[in-house]
Amino acid sequence: MSLDTASVKPMERLSAELADDMERVNALIRARMVSEHAPRIPEITAHLVEAGGKRLRPMLTLATARMCGYRGEDHLLLAATVEFIHTATLLHDDVVDESDQRRGRPTANLLWDNKSSVLVGDYLFARSFKLMVETGSLRVLDILSSASATIAEGEVLQLTAAQNLATTEAIYTQVIRGKTAALFSAATEVGGVIAGADEAIVRDLHTYGDALGMAFQIVDDLLDYGGSTATIGKNVGDDFRERKLTLPVIKAVAKADDEERAFWRRVIEKGDQRDGDLEHALSLLDKHGAMAAARDDALAWAATAKAALEQVPQTALREMLEDLADYVVARIN
Amino acid sequence: MSLDTASVKPMERLSAELADDMERVNALIRARMVSEHAPRIPEITAHLVEAGGKRLRPMLTLATARMCGYRGEDHLLLAATVEFIHTATLLHDDVVDESDQRRGRPTANLLWDNKSSVLVGDYLFARSFKLMVETGSLRVLDILSSASATIAEGEVLQLTAAQNLATTEAIYTQVIRGKTAALFSAATEVGGVIAGADEAIVRDLHTYGDALGMAFQIVDDLLDYGGSTATIGKNVGDDFRERKLTLPVIKAVAKADDEERAFWRRVIEKGDQRDGDLEHALSLLDKHGAMAAARDDALAWAATAKAALEQVPQTALREMLEDLADYVVARIN
Repeated sequence: MSLDTASVKPMERLSAELADDMERVNALIRARMVSEHAPRIPEITAHLVEAGGKRLRPMLTLATARMCGYRGEDHLLLAATVEFIHTATLLHDDVVDESDQRRGRPTANLLWDNKSSVLVGDYLFARSFKLMVETGSLRVLDILSSASATIAEGEVLQLTAAQNLATTEAIYTQVIRGKTAALFSAATEVGGVIAGADEAIVRDLHTYGDALGMAFQIVDDLLDYGGSTATIGKNVGDDFRERKLTLPVIKAVAKADDEERAFWRRVIEKGDQRDGDLEHALSLLDKHGAMAAARDDALAWAATAKAALEQVPQTALREMLEDLADYVVARIN
Repeated sequence: MSLDTASVKPMERLSAELADDMERVNALIRARMVSEHAPRIPEITAHLVEAGGKRLRPMLTLATARMCGYRGEDHLLLAATVEFIHTATLLHDDVVDESDQRRGRPTANLLWDNKSSVLVGDYLFARSFKLMVETGSLRVLDILSSASATIAEGEVLQLTAAQNLATTEAIYTQVIRGKTAALFSAATEVGGVIAGADEAIVRDLHTYGDALGMAFQIVDDLLDYGGSTATIGKNVGDDFRERKLTLPVIKAVAKADDEERAFWRRVIEKGDQRDGDLEHALSLLDKHGAMAAARDDALAWAATAKAALEQVPQTALREMLEDLADYVVARIN
């Protein structure tokens, strides 16, 4: 991503602070993505996990565990688990969305095929469970398997809500809590659990991860109507062309007059899209202040994330996590 | 399935013996396949789990736990887990195989779409892990998550071996151990583990499930070249048309002369299939005794399964499991 220096800093500082741990997580991921019998599994996994992803989710687990004073090694297993779950969902998402580009590179379903993406995703899910079983913590297993169910539920809900103008902000919230926030909140919560943090702190860490994930996904959906391919790794208007109901459109539809509603019905529900429709959609988002309102929602979630850390002892890591919440929304500033 | 009365008996006796437990497992499955937010999930799950499947895998867990004297309730959770894992793999298999029929009914990917099948399968995988976490047994979690990884690995291996005449019996063995035997052996092993059976018995139960699964899958692959739609719920020659290398063909290819090899290369590797090719393939299987040889392999696995139970105390359940091994291969007698 091309970002201005000020906003990059929190991620860079987190990466530097957690560099030793992250190196061991990367080694663990490489060791556990092998398959004795099926070489296609590490080929496809490597294509994704070595594509230069930000490793944001595993970093959340490492950071929260360390922030709570954890001195053991299980946070490495959990960070690798979280990245495996994330990679598995990416593989399946790209099949479901029929995507051909991910992080600026061709997707696995394009380079290999949908079948391989489905099955290698299944393999990574199963491996992620094996990894977390090694921690011996039933509570951690419950949190992460619940999160996996919520992720799949959110994706199914997104599928059934797609192309439906009746989609409300409440449904959108459920969808993005599933597809994004559930893994963020599980990643931060298990960091606290493994460190033996107080129950109140564990709850706060869950709230932090949830709010960070909500802010992150709203910003992602905003950028789809106003970023460049270089910034977001996909093209502006992808969601529009795929007729996905995201927050800016939901807000604009809610304020639409009859003529505008007919437009949205044609392009989203009927899928009859013509030259100039994306531009017209953008002008409607602007007219109703939908982008600004969605941006305000993202800022509110970031504020919730930061506030959730108030009871956590003040350390450099806590400050970095607070800054991370600002960084996530700074992408749209 | 339409089977002669003699061969049905073991399944019927097992079903009768375990009827109370199985009723509670079915209630558990129905309770746990719901989704608060995404009604499509129970719709699709119900389509599969209420399609009149034999519930063979959960029955294996119930039977082995009871046979080892288990008096608790966790075997119900594990039986439901095993059925959820099985259902999830069926959903994904039908997407990968592009199937349109399963158990004599249209598949979910045909009635809904591939996307829903992928995501609902993911949901059921995650729910299965949540179910087994409730048992509180890390050993059970390890066995079942390892089995899930082996299943996916076997499916990927099958994908990469498809249409490749170089596929050996060793590769075929790995494929079917993954796609079928891994869940059978996990289902029987966890029954013993949850009952606190001796380690030697737990190993025997694993061996029993593995051998039963191997026999089961070889028979399935045999029936594809010699059953009726009514018997097997799919059409004769499906594997041939999908260019899958199963045991009868692998054995016939190994004995093929140059002309026969050219035939197999055309129909399997190049996929150039014409009228009369299936009949010619069947005549080659017959000429080389490939069906009989594969049948012998299945019988040998069934014998291994029965022998594995020798150290288990003699009870009615042990006898039913022994008979089950005979029943599985009786389908081809």
